[in-house]
Amino acid sequence: MSNFQEVAEAFVKFYYETFDSNRQNLAPLYAKGSMLTFESQQFSGSASITEKLVALPFQKVAHRISTIDAQPSSPQNATILVLVTGQLLVDEEQNPQMFSQTFHLVPENGSYWVFNDIFRLNYA
Amino acid sequence: MSNFQEVAEAFVKFYYETFDSNRQNLAPLYAKGSMLTFESQQFSGSASITEKLVALPFQKVAHRISTIDAQPSSPQNATILVLVTGQLLVDEEQNPQMFSQTFHLVPENGSYWVFNDIFRLNYA
Repeated sequence: MSNFQEVAEAFVKFYYETFDSNRQNLAPLYAKGSMLTFESQQFSGSASITEKLVALPFQKVAHRISTIDAQPSSPQNATILVLVTGQLLVDEEQNPQMFSQTFHLVPENGSYWVFNDIFRLNYA
Repeated sequence: MSNFQEVAEAFVKFYYETFDSNRQNLAPLYAKGSMLTFESQQFSGSASITEKLVALPFQKVAHRISTIDAQPSSPQNATILVLVTGQLLVDEEQNPQMFSQTFHLVPENGSYWVFNDIFRLNYA
């Protein structure tokens, strides 16, 4: 298992655990230059992105991860590209929604922050 | 509409038109440093990637694009990150399969090539 795949899996696990328990705590994973495209809506910067995620209209949410694929995204830097697919359960809904999410991770001070984040629900 | 979104849409349209008509012609869109993760299988370099795509076990294929989201992926370079979601019809199958695909595009000589390519079918 390559290191970038391990980093991606650890990041994704931490990200959704945080998302599903307290979305406000996602703020440190983003920075000033971060971008989020959420169902075609665009946000930039940690504050604006976290505000959007916290304001999503559900009280309970659970992400079930199906796949995590990672690749190094640059010949020069240790940046990592990740594609996640999975299922999303919100509030008392019984039927999960399928989603896809792409993260672009940038290393800094021994950790990683999210430069790019693109989220889409997958409708059949 | 920002330029990176226009580039992404033009690229994605061209990519799937080429894929659906003659997969061999995808070779010039990849380079030596390109990576493909296709349903968790990893390939690198244009020749190896094209060989995999050409060998996929169907004669007819049609991609129907549902969404195309793009973001600039670097503060320094004009690289572009793209998440595509859509449906795939192969051979005489009546039921499309849902897919997600992330491309990381690198500009060179007035065009773009694929540095990262991650493809996943989405199973309900």
